[in-house]
Amino acid sequence: SDMAFGIRELAKRLAHIRLKMNVQHVFLLAKAHDATLIANTREVAHWLLTRDQHYKVYVEDTLEHNRVFDAEGLLASNHSFEGRLKFWTNKLCAEKPQTFDIVLALGGDGTVLYASWLFQRVVPPVLAFSLGSLGFLTKFDYDGFQNTLSRAFKEGITVSLRLRFEATVMRSQVHNGDSARDLVEQLIGEESEDNHTHKPDGTHNILNEVVVDRGPNPTMSTIELFGDDEHFTTIQADGICVSTPTGSTAYNLAAGGSLCHPDNPVVLVTAICAHTLSFRPIILPDTIVLRAGVPYDARTSSWASFDGRERVELRPGDYVTISASRFPFPSVLPLDRKSKDWVDSISRTLNWNSRQRQKSFKEWN
Amino acid sequence: SDMAFGIRELAKRLAHIRLKMNVQHVFLLAKAHDATLIANTREVAHWLLTRDQHYKVYVEDTLEHNRVFDAEGLLASNHSFEGRLKFWTNKLCAEKPQTFDIVLALGGDGTVLYASWLFQRVVPPVLAFSLGSLGFLTKFDYDGFQNTLSRAFKEGITVSLRLRFEATVMRSQVHNGDSARDLVEQLIGEESEDNHTHKPDGTHNILNEVVVDRGPNPTMSTIELFGDDEHFTTIQADGICVSTPTGSTAYNLAAGGSLCHPDNPVVLVTAICAHTLSFRPIILPDTIVLRAGVPYDARTSSWASFDGRERVELRPGDYVTISASRFPFPSVLPLDRKSKDWVDSISRTLNWNSRQRQKSFKEWN
Amino acid sequence: SDMAFGIRELAKRLAHIRLKMNVQHVFLLAKAHDATLIANTREVAHWLLTRDQHYKVYVEDTLEHNRVFDAEGLLASNHSFEGRLKFWTNKLCAEKPQTFDIVLALGGDGTVLYASWLFQRVVPPVLAFSLGSLGFLTKFDYDGFQNTLSRAFKEGITVSLRLRFEATVMRSQVHNGDSARDLVEQLIGEESEDNHTHKPDGTHNILNEVVVDRGPNPTMSTIELFGDDEHFTTIQADGICVSTPTGSTAYNLAAGGSLCHPDNPVVLVTAICAHTLSFRPIILPDTIVLRAGVPYDARTSSWASFDGRERVELRPGDYVTISASRFPFPSVLPLDRKSKDWVDSISRTLNWNSRQRQKSFKEWN
Amino acid sequence: SDMAFGIRELAKRLAHIRLKMNVQHVFLLAKAHDATLIANTREVAHWLLTRDQHYKVYVEDTLEHNRVFDAEGLLASNHSFEGRLKFWTNKLCAEKPQTFDIVLALGGDGTVLYASWLFQRVVPPVLAFSLGSLGFLTKFDYDGFQNTLSRAFKEGITVSLRLRFEATVMRSQVHNGDSARDLVEQLIGEESEDNHTHKPDGTHNILNEVVVDRGPNPTMSTIELFGDDEHFTTIQADGICVSTPTGSTAYNLAAGGSLCHPDNPVVLVTAICAHTLSFRPIILPDTIVLRAGVPYDARTSSWASFDGRERVELRPGDYVTISASRFPFPSVLPLDRKSKDWVDSISRTLNWNSRQRQKSFKEWN
Repeated sequence: SDMAFGIRELAKRLAHIRLKMNVQHVFLLAKAHDATLIANTREVAHWLLTRDQHYKVYVEDTLEHNRVFDAEGLLASNHSFEGRLKFWTNKLCAEKPQTFDIVLALGGDGTVLYASWLFQRVVPPVLAFSLGSLGFLTKFDYDGFQNTLSRAFKEGITVSLRLRFEATVMRSQVHNGDSARDLVEQLIGEESEDNHTHKPDGTHNILNEVVVDRGPNPTMSTIELFGDDEHFTTIQADGICVSTPTGSTAYNLAAGGSLCHPDNPVVLVTAICAHTLSFRPIILPDTIVLRAGVPYDARTSSWASFDGRERVELRPGDYVTISASRFPFPSVLPLDRKSKDWVDSISRTLNWNSRQRQKSFKEWN
Repeated sequence: SDMAFGIRELAKRLAHIRLKMNVQHVFLLAKAHDATLIANTREVAHWLLTRDQHYKVYVEDTLEHNRVFDAEGLLASNHSFEGRLKFWTNKLCAEKPQTFDIVLALGGDGTVLYASWLFQRVVPPVLAFSLGSLGFLTKFDYDGFQNTLSRAFKEGITVSLRLRFEATVMRSQVHNGDSARDLVEQLIGEESEDNHTHKPDGTHNILNEVVVDRGPNPTMSTIELFGDDEHFTTIQADGICVSTPTGSTAYNLAAGGSLCHPDNPVVLVTAICAHTLSFRPIILPDTIVLRAGVPYDARTSSWASFDGRERVELRPGDYVTISASRFPFPSVLPLDRKSKDWVDSISRTLNWNSRQRQKSFKEWN
Repeated sequence: SDMAFGIRELAKRLAHIRLKMNVQHVFLLAKAHDATLIANTREVAHWLLTRDQHYKVYVEDTLEHNRVFDAEGLLASNHSFEGRLKFWTNKLCAEKPQTFDIVLALGGDGTVLYASWLFQRVVPPVLAFSLGSLGFLTKFDYDGFQNTLSRAFKEGITVSLRLRFEATVMRSQVHNGDSARDLVEQLIGEESEDNHTHKPDGTHNILNEVVVDRGPNPTMSTIELFGDDEHFTTIQADGICVSTPTGSTAYNLAAGGSLCHPDNPVVLVTAICAHTLSFRPIILPDTIVLRAGVPYDARTSSWASFDGRERVELRPGDYVTISASRFPFPSVLPLDRKSKDWVDSISRTLNWNSRQRQKSFKEWN
Repeated sequence: SDMAFGIRELAKRLAHIRLKMNVQHVFLLAKAHDATLIANTREVAHWLLTRDQHYKVYVEDTLEHNRVFDAEGLLASNHSFEGRLKFWTNKLCAEKPQTFDIVLALGGDGTVLYASWLFQRVVPPVLAFSLGSLGFLTKFDYDGFQNTLSRAFKEGITVSLRLRFEATVMRSQVHNGDSARDLVEQLIGEESEDNHTHKPDGTHNILNEVVVDRGPNPTMSTIELFGDDEHFTTIQADGICVSTPTGSTAYNLAAGGSLCHPDNPVVLVTAICAHTLSFRPIILPDTIVLRAGVPYDARTSSWASFDGRERVELRPGDYVTISASRFPFPSVLPLDRKSKDWVDSISRTLNWNSRQRQKSFKEWN
């Protein structure tokens, strides 16, 4: 058992990886519909191109002819920039993610989620600048980005390998309305050897959570939940939220789940407005394979969404598998106070004050 | 990162250890004030003594002259029993726990907690028989104990190594009422190098939870919470519950915490009736060292309890450290359906029905 | 103040009205797509028509040519039935609700909600038979309906006057996208005298709850909440549920609200998955006028639903007013144990056992 | 039913009573161990005595020889003060509450609770000044008390009649340990006609809540809960909190209950850390008589406390009755914004911002 605890320590250390940087290809990411962010993107691009002539800077291809970004003007300002300002496409992210040494995200936590969406397989280290207050994933102030980047490129960075889920929609190959079929039988019963009952229909690597809910239906959803080869229970609720530790501060918290340190190798399953008294948030090992599906005799469809995007209809008989992804998300930690990073972000969010007492709402006595 | 996940798998497997049994010394445990349980203890002792003349059976020393147990009669019934019925004391458990090959507990989950209390350091594998309905830790029906034991001794057992905490009370060496002292300064500030501010006053290995609460005070407690070298926050609440995964279904659940699979290497921190809006249950890695203390300027003491026992007063300036124990608790898993054991026990407790739909309280539509 | 408490007692008594019955026109209600319920409807109609030749029985007009109901056969079976079997339409319910002496509902609580929907203004007393287990609003076993009805018609009935809400959708008369407009200003600020900012677009009398939520949007809603002439707060959540006491056991409970005795003159406001820590369920007097709206600068619409039906889109600038309706819902109480009725239904639903101890999930000690 | 709603309106208005003041006898209340508050008390006394020679001012008798208050000096400063500075005792409050035209409380909400404790029967109007931030019951800034009092005495005041509970401890007259006795039988069963089973042992009028809990026991309490002549359920929990609407923001909120407008004629029953899944906070009419008791076969006592004071042991067989008191608590409302008073205090406490958007903890999207 001493060995067991030694391995836990080891696992913890492996979740934080220190990287020396040999930066050449820098990927810039911002929501491209916001004029302020486009100006910021230009500012960072200009600084990088000026700083080192070996740097190549990639910006979103929609900026190529954007008036605010003014690529032409940028290139004209310094002839050494020629050939070093490049334009990325979604396709390039999908096919050649290894091209990039680092992703610099400008914006809020939503921009970091967008980075996770763009890089569905290998993800370059993501260093996120906040334009407003710091968030759970945006750990650097935009003000002073020059110092931050100079120091990071010189001293190296530490990344926290954040667990992502791989979620696959499985479509029932049975004619709709065949309510004699039984999802439980198909997945863990006598039919579980039959590979023809369902076909995959799209896989998503997600950083925060998979939600299966009632979507536009005014009535509740009925969801069958399976863990490995067990049928856990039938949930009657608005939906369920299956969250990574990183996502624990997002929808999971709104649904009543616990805050969870991102290094914990766990999966958080929380019902959304359960219509029974017998469900409580559950913390499972990240080695489990979860399946959440719509029973064949359900009166309505449910909807799956992935990191709050891409809502997909699940018809009766369909399900989603959720398991730990082989492609974690390397989030660059603050250069200082690395080990306190999580507590700092929790304190900011919950208005914890580590020195001053909080005002209690109970003033009595 | 593939390595990281490989290590997680490995850690998971190490939490379940398969043991061949070479049983000689069997420890019988039951609450000794219950006549039925004493009779059951006698029944098991008799069966063991009869079954194999190499077996030595240990029962609690209070049974030596107990009328129901009737040790004299037992010994008189078969002269081969002579010298093989022995009587254990708390001291023997504390000093020579390696004497015993296995602990057979008769009763409920409370009896298993009692086993954890008796064996504060190394714990022999504990196989628990329930006299009523099965619990989280009592996984075997008493009816049919003969078959269970025959099979376990022959085929071997699998134990789940349950995380325990080591909790130490630390007494302030400062005169009471010196409210100029500051616990935060002492523990993580400039005074943190000073080893003379506090002295240890008792260590407890616990299986379920450490609770620090207001005890007999009608008013709330103020508790300073530290994780490693960080001051997390000041909690104003009835108390806090720091729970192992095993304890997640006990007081932690009543206080609003999540259910947690026992293999997860985590610590659950839940406030009890928080008097602020800014505290939510938190899941931390089991590699953390937590400290929970009473500020020097608190108007009242708080109380610490360990697995629901041994309530200890914490005066202003005192604190408790809580960290993973080196001595986990080896709980014998059911001989069949081992991997489903947790889901089975959760289903029983929350009245999950894995085949039948639960009745929703919302009948509309 | 003695007077104040005397009035509370009086208000309580007025909520329970005892009625002598002089039954002539009986309204039968069941979901018409369920063959079993149609057969039951026929059974009750036949019994009523046979029992007293002054009774006129109204069934849904879709049954006129329904094969299972077989109106022709029913009429042919007894010539005294002629002219006494009638067919109701939604229009008749809306325009001449006074026609009916009593509504007999067959089904579950959903059927009673349907009665509330049909009778938007005056509601005849509703006596509800359950085909399965009893519910919050279905208080009579269908088995033995003959005895129930004989006794009710002879001895009279007691009705509980259940609070309904009147909810009106108010449409902004401003061009969409004019985000310079400010809903708070319009409703309680300088513009609040201006009656041209919004126009009513449909009123609903509801028995359970009004929900304003994110509908098919994957992101949260932003909702401005007003009480009388005060802006309470801006809620960021999946939505809000404004529930009557009757509805407290339905969606309100799923969203985390309290159980509420139906005689309480209150309104329950509960956020659905609030994304801030600062909202808790709130109990308000039923004399309040609530308004819940979508701010002009919201990125998405919200949706309003009324007793789980008729989902209506609320675009930025639209809102819903909610206040106590002048038309309460008279629910017939059980003939016996009238005063215990609520506790009985709560006990059934929450599995309270008023004699036997509940099994605690904490077995320790 | 129109009548029913008219009565609700009437009841609402009666809860707010406008009073002309003919002030002569002013009662000053502050916690007498705080030197600052004593100085404030002196300041108010001096101002009152100076302002009108018909005023008589009562301060706590412990101030008669207090050095900070310096009664002698005060009297010596102006010979017209003679005979007009008086000293109250607890006995005077208990026996002649009608002596006082108004109570001026200085401090926090705890001081207002203390006023409720002093005046167990009739309570004079209580106008509460806050020395720090305003609270739920302290609605006036101490700064500017002169203007507040001048205006109140001249224009009159509006009081909100806050519901109090009358709680009586009932002692079992049965020998302890007679576990064959059954509390349910005694209170609502065959023995309920027998008036000799219990004897009253003290009555308390309380403004916030009655709590029955496990007190110093580390284990949970078992509590039998009765409403009128019904046994509701057996609660296994740390305790239960029975709260007035005024108390809804105090311990009730910490235990998970709802916020409740003080004009609602209701009682809030909330379990504290329930150890079963089947209890949810319940809102009952204030016309109910609740009884909460310890079953005869309980292994431990429970403890009752009244507004957080006077913890009383309840041995097996004892219970507490709780019902609306005939003596409400007249709390003086702010001179302006009277009708908004509750929303204002809730907004302050929950950090609602009625104009500015709250920061969501979910930044995504």
